[in-house]
Amino acid sequence: MTIKDIARISGVSITTVSRVLNNRPDVSDESRRKVLEVIENNNYIPNNSARDLVKTKSDAIGLVVRGVSNPFYTDIIRAVESGITAGGYTMVMQQIGSNEDELKRAAMMEREKRLRGLILLGGRFDYTPTDLALLNVPFVCCSFSNHYGTLTEKEYSSVSIADKETAYQAVRHLIANGHRRIAALITCTDDRSISQLRYEGYVQAMEEAGFPLEDPLVICTDTYNIQGAYQAMTRALDDGGNFTAVFAISDNMAIGAMRALRENGRAVPEDCSVIAVDGIEVSDYIDPPLTTFCQPMEEMGRHSVEILLDMIGKHSGNRHETLPTVLRQGGSVRPLV
Amino acid sequence: MTIKDIARISGVSITTVSRVLNNRPDVSDESRRKVLEVIENNNYIPNNSARDLVKTKSDAIGLVVRGVSNPFYTDIIRAVESGITAGGYTMVMQQIGSNEDELKRAAMMEREKRLRGLILLGGRFDYTPTDLALLNVPFVCCSFSNHYGTLTEKEYSSVSIADKETAYQAVRHLIANGHRRIAALITCTDDRSISQLRYEGYVQAMEEAGFPLEDPLVICTDTYNIQGAYQAMTRALDDGGNFTAVFAISDNMAIGAMRALRENGRAVPEDCSVIAVDGIEVSDYIDPPLTTFCQPMEEMGRHSVEILLDMIGKHSGNRHETLPTVLRQGGSVRPLV
Repeated sequence: MTIKDIARISGVSITTVSRVLNNRPDVSDESRRKVLEVIENNNYIPNNSARDLVKTKSDAIGLVVRGVSNPFYTDIIRAVESGITAGGYTMVMQQIGSNEDELKRAAMMEREKRLRGLILLGGRFDYTPTDLALLNVPFVCCSFSNHYGTLTEKEYSSVSIADKETAYQAVRHLIANGHRRIAALITCTDDRSISQLRYEGYVQAMEEAGFPLEDPLVICTDTYNIQGAYQAMTRALDDGGNFTAVFAISDNMAIGAMRALRENGRAVPEDCSVIAVDGIEVSDYIDPPLTTFCQPMEEMGRHSVEILLDMIGKHSGNRHETLPTVLRQGGSVRPLV
Repeated sequence: MTIKDIARISGVSITTVSRVLNNRPDVSDESRRKVLEVIENNNYIPNNSARDLVKTKSDAIGLVVRGVSNPFYTDIIRAVESGITAGGYTMVMQQIGSNEDELKRAAMMEREKRLRGLILLGGRFDYTPTDLALLNVPFVCCSFSNHYGTLTEKEYSSVSIADKETAYQAVRHLIANGHRRIAALITCTDDRSISQLRYEGYVQAMEEAGFPLEDPLVICTDTYNIQGAYQAMTRALDDGGNFTAVFAISDNMAIGAMRALRENGRAVPEDCSVIAVDGIEVSDYIDPPLTTFCQPMEEMGRHSVEILLDMIGKHSGNRHETLPTVLRQGGSVRPLV
C-alpha cells in the first residue's frame, strides 16, 4: 500500500495524505479523520524516506502530552525526560490540545518514529480493547487510569493518584471546616476524564454529608486554563454565587477563580474558602497560599519511565501504581463559625 | 577509537565512559569532564548500537532546554514542538540545569541522535568560535544572543528580546513613578548570562538618573526559581531592606519576592513596588497582578524554528531577530508621592 492508494481510498489528494502523515495543521478535521481511518484499517506504516526502511528499531520513546499548558505537567516532563535519557533512550515529544485524541496521535508517532514505547501524559479514562489495537508497543498512562473503560489490568500500565478519593478528601476538608454550600469548579461533569472523576468525589462527599447538590454549585469551564476558570467563576458570581467555599479540580483553575472572587469583592478565605488538587510550586507563593492536595509530580514521571523500561527491556507485564497525595495547608480555607 | 580507548586515555572505567555517553547522572563532575575532554579532542562519535551505523541522517531536531523549571519556557517549548512537527521533523528534547553547559550537551546529542539541527533554549551569552567547533549542524539560540562573546553575526542565529534595554525600561518605569531606592533582584552580576545583561540595564537607568548604586540594593540569589528569590528577598529584608521598589529579572523571581515582602509586613504596592520581565500567564492572576514586560513567547519559539528550518532546507545563512516586549500594567507599581 502506498500513499497514492491511501489518497484514492480516502477520496482526498496525495498532498492531503502527506500533510496528515506529517501531522501538519493545515488539513480539515474531516480529511484527517478519513485518512487516519484508511491508515488504521489497512495497518499502513508510513515511511517518510528510504533511509528509514533500513532501520527496524530506534531508541526513541514517545511522550504525548495532552493539554500541555498545564503547569502541573512541567515537573513530570522533566522527570520523564531525565529517566528516558538516563536509560539510554531518546525522548520524542509531541503535544496535543485537551480535545485531541492522544491514542491516535500516539499510534501515528509509533509508526513514523519507530517507537520502542510510549508514555501518555494526560488522557481519556475510557479506553476499550479496540482503542488499544492502534498501539503495538508498551505504553504507560501517566496521571490517568481506565476508570470508565473496559480494559483489564493486564492490558495497560498506569501511574496515577486516586483522583476521586483525593477530590473527596478535599471536599471533606471544607465540610470539616463547617462549609455546606460548596461549589465545584470543573471542566465538565461527564467527559469521562479527570474532571468527571474528581467531580464524582465532590458528589460523594456532598451526598454523604446530606448537603443539597444544586446546579448553581456546579461551575463548568470549557478549558483547564486559568483564564477559562476566571471567566467561569466571574459568571457564577454575577449569577449570585451563593456558596461559601470552592473546590477546584486544579491549582491553575483555583488561581483563576481567586482573581474572580477578589474582583467581585469577596476576600479569600474571609468571604470564600478555596481548595484544589495539584500542588504546583507557584500556588504556594500567592496571597493567600493555596490549600491543596499535592500530587507527587516527580515520582509520577519517574515511576512511569521505570515501568515502561521494564516492559521494553525485561519484557515485564503491565503494572499499576497509585501514588499518595499530601495536603499542603495554605491560607485559602477558613472555618465557618 | 573505541569506548575502551576513551576509558584508557581519560583514566576512568569503561562503565564510567558508558555512563557519560548515556548522560546518566551517576558520574562525578570530574570524571564527566575528563571523558568529554577526550571525546572532544578526538572527535569521537558515539554509536550506541550497530543499527545506528546504517543511518546517516535522521529527521531529528534537538531542543536543549537549560533550566527547565522556568515557566517562561513552557509556551516556547510548545511553539517549538508544534513548528518542528509541522515541518515534518521530530523533536528530541533534553533538559539541563542552569549550571550545566548547553553546548557540550548539544554536541553530545548531535552525535548520538544524528541531529539535523539544534535549538538552544536558554544559554550563555559568551560563546567563542572555539565553542562552536563542537557543533556541526545549524543551530538557533532562543531567548539569548552573544552579547559577551566573540562570534560574528554570521556564525550563529538567534531570536531574543533586547534584554538590557527591556531591563532599562522597567527600571525607568519605576523611576518615572518617583522611586529612587530601587533594588535589583538578580542571580548574579557577572555570570555573562541573562542576569548580568539585565543587571546592566538596571545600572544604566540608575546611573543616568544619578541615583546611588549601593550593595544592599543588589540582591543576588543562586537560582532562577521562586524559592531562591523568596529566600534572597527574606534575607535582604532582614538586613534592613531600605528600598521602595524592586526590579526582578523574571516574573517567577518577582512572585517569590512578593511573598517575602508580604511576610515581612510590606504590602505591594503600598510599601514596595515590584516590576519584572517575562509576562507569564499566572503573574497576571496573583494579588496584585504583576506589572511586567511581556516577552512574545509563542513568537520566539515559532521564529526559532523558521530560521532553523530555512537553514536546514534552503541552506539559508544565519539570521538574528530581536522581538519587541510589551509592558503589561498590573497593580504592583505605585507612584511615590
